[in-house]
Amino acid sequence: MYIMSLIVVGSMAYDAIETPFGKTDWIVGGAATYIAHTASYFVKPINQVSIVGYDFAKEELDQLEKRGVNLEGVEIVKDKKSFFWSGKYHMDMNSRDTLVTDLNCFLDFNPIIPESYQGSEFLMLGNILPSLQISVVKQMKQRPKLIAMDTMNFWMDNALDDLKKLIAMVDVLMINDSEARQLSGQYSLVKAAREIMKMGPQFLIIKKGEHGALLFHKDLVFVAPALPLEEVFDPTGAGDTFAGGFMGYIASTKDISFENMKTAIIVGSAMASFCVEKFGPDRIKELSRADIDARIRQFVDLVNFDIKLV
Amino acid sequence: MYIMSLIVVGSMAYDAIETPFGKTDWIVGGAATYIAHTASYFVKPINQVSIVGYDFAKEELDQLEKRGVNLEGVEIVKDKKSFFWSGKYHMDMNSRDTLVTDLNCFLDFNPIIPESYQGSEFLMLGNILPSLQISVVKQMKQRPKLIAMDTMNFWMDNALDDLKKLIAMVDVLMINDSEARQLSGQYSLVKAAREIMKMGPQFLIIKKGEHGALLFHKDLVFVAPALPLEEVFDPTGAGDTFAGGFMGYIASTKDISFENMKTAIIVGSAMASFCVEKFGPDRIKELSRADIDARIRQFVDLVNFDIKLV
Repeated sequence: MYIMSLIVVGSMAYDAIETPFGKTDWIVGGAATYIAHTASYFVKPINQVSIVGYDFAKEELDQLEKRGVNLEGVEIVKDKKSFFWSGKYHMDMNSRDTLVTDLNCFLDFNPIIPESYQGSEFLMLGNILPSLQISVVKQMKQRPKLIAMDTMNFWMDNALDDLKKLIAMVDVLMINDSEARQLSGQYSLVKAAREIMKMGPQFLIIKKGEHGALLFHKDLVFVAPALPLEEVFDPTGAGDTFAGGFMGYIASTKDISFENMKTAIIVGSAMASFCVEKFGPDRIKELSRADIDARIRQFVDLVNFDIKLV
Repeated sequence: MYIMSLIVVGSMAYDAIETPFGKTDWIVGGAATYIAHTASYFVKPINQVSIVGYDFAKEELDQLEKRGVNLEGVEIVKDKKSFFWSGKYHMDMNSRDTLVTDLNCFLDFNPIIPESYQGSEFLMLGNILPSLQISVVKQMKQRPKLIAMDTMNFWMDNALDDLKKLIAMVDVLMINDSEARQLSGQYSLVKAAREIMKMGPQFLIIKKGEHGALLFHKDLVFVAPALPLEEVFDPTGAGDTFAGGFMGYIASTKDISFENMKTAIIVGSAMASFCVEKFGPDRIKELSRADIDARIRQFVDLVNFDIKLV
């Protein structure tokens, strides 16, 4: 029997971020942090699987628990620090330099799915070593109704065999446009999507940052816009926030049709548009239901046109 | 009294084009050629203003006339060749090298609005020297209901004063994203749009190629997708085809509201998606009404999502 919940696997970390608009030396981050905070607006419980060091603030963990995030699967390492990343964005906000990557306790990450998480209907695999993502899928005694994964170019360069094995096991792959081109060897995103879906996943989401996102499924395609923003204050975590909104919405509706995924992508895009307004996850921690509804309404207005006259 | 028609001002030329998919040494081109062919699917007559040389094929002129394009304003220079452009596209199709620009008869272009064109409701100024575009606007005894213009970065570098004078005289400015950034000095397209609208135009269309287009008007914004294509065979003329579809649709509906412009942008995007399928204007010369309707329907499906559940 399924239980209505979403498992989130990924990093929980601290970041130091510099953008043209400001600088922060120490702010909570990590894919699973963004995903869990965002998804918690739509579904409870969220079953978190991650690893943190002794320096990870109890306050941050408490915030997550208060939002319905189950932390049984989050290992706290007593003698190591948390994963730390530092980066600096360029003026165009589309590229960044990584200044520091201290894996710290994350080197020991060996995700274990607690017994109480078994039977969860939805599984979101944040970007980590593909062999660890595979291990998580294999630990599920009952295959979740929908498995989605994120990954990155680094694993295409360094762990392609495992990555391909994993891609064949999941339902939804989320990558950005340059990763889709690298993975498929095709420049045209339509051709890239066709090649990648041949590798296994029924659904492919190609994220294009400020240009929105594409959803592919068989011969179908959907284009979601990004909200044109006056200012992107800090893009860190926007992709993970997108994933959190997408999977949170899917898990809350329990509907894995292409039609419903279109709406889920709009929800993910709306949540990501909040994320970039402040440093780290600050903005997505403080939203009201009314904020979210109003933002989604903006997306409707953004793309809605009257075609009757044509 | 207005007469229902669209004046199109711009170049008629020959091009030699090389793309990763092929090569053509001699094909009809020029902004006004693309605009007129495209707009002719929606509105008649089109009052063309241009200049060609002795080598411009009578067959091309006959084709335009048969489609309801009035050529009274097209000067034929007996002792000079037509404007000739040659370019080569890079693999990504977003950038190209200009190999040859022979202005030939176009050096003498001094657009004269024939008396019979006076009173036209709509005016589309293709990309030419801003002072010539200004001259056209000044020749109109009755200001058209809607004046739209295209331009390019070259005039921002070399004729900025005239360009700004012109921009203050028009209703709709169409430029691409890098031109919007250059003209405004703002990286954010939302901020760029606000600065540019302060220069005069009520409506601003920012074209983003494969990423679609944005329409700005006061505090409103609309995002039109581009159709995800397997292959862009030849992007030459896509922007002019977009303009032709946009203005053709506006002229046919006589509705210059923001709401109607959204639909017009979808029509323009649909027409542009045809343009890139073959060399030059070949594809947009051969469309049926059913082709166009089906393509517009694809755009509806592309962005349409169900928001009731959220």
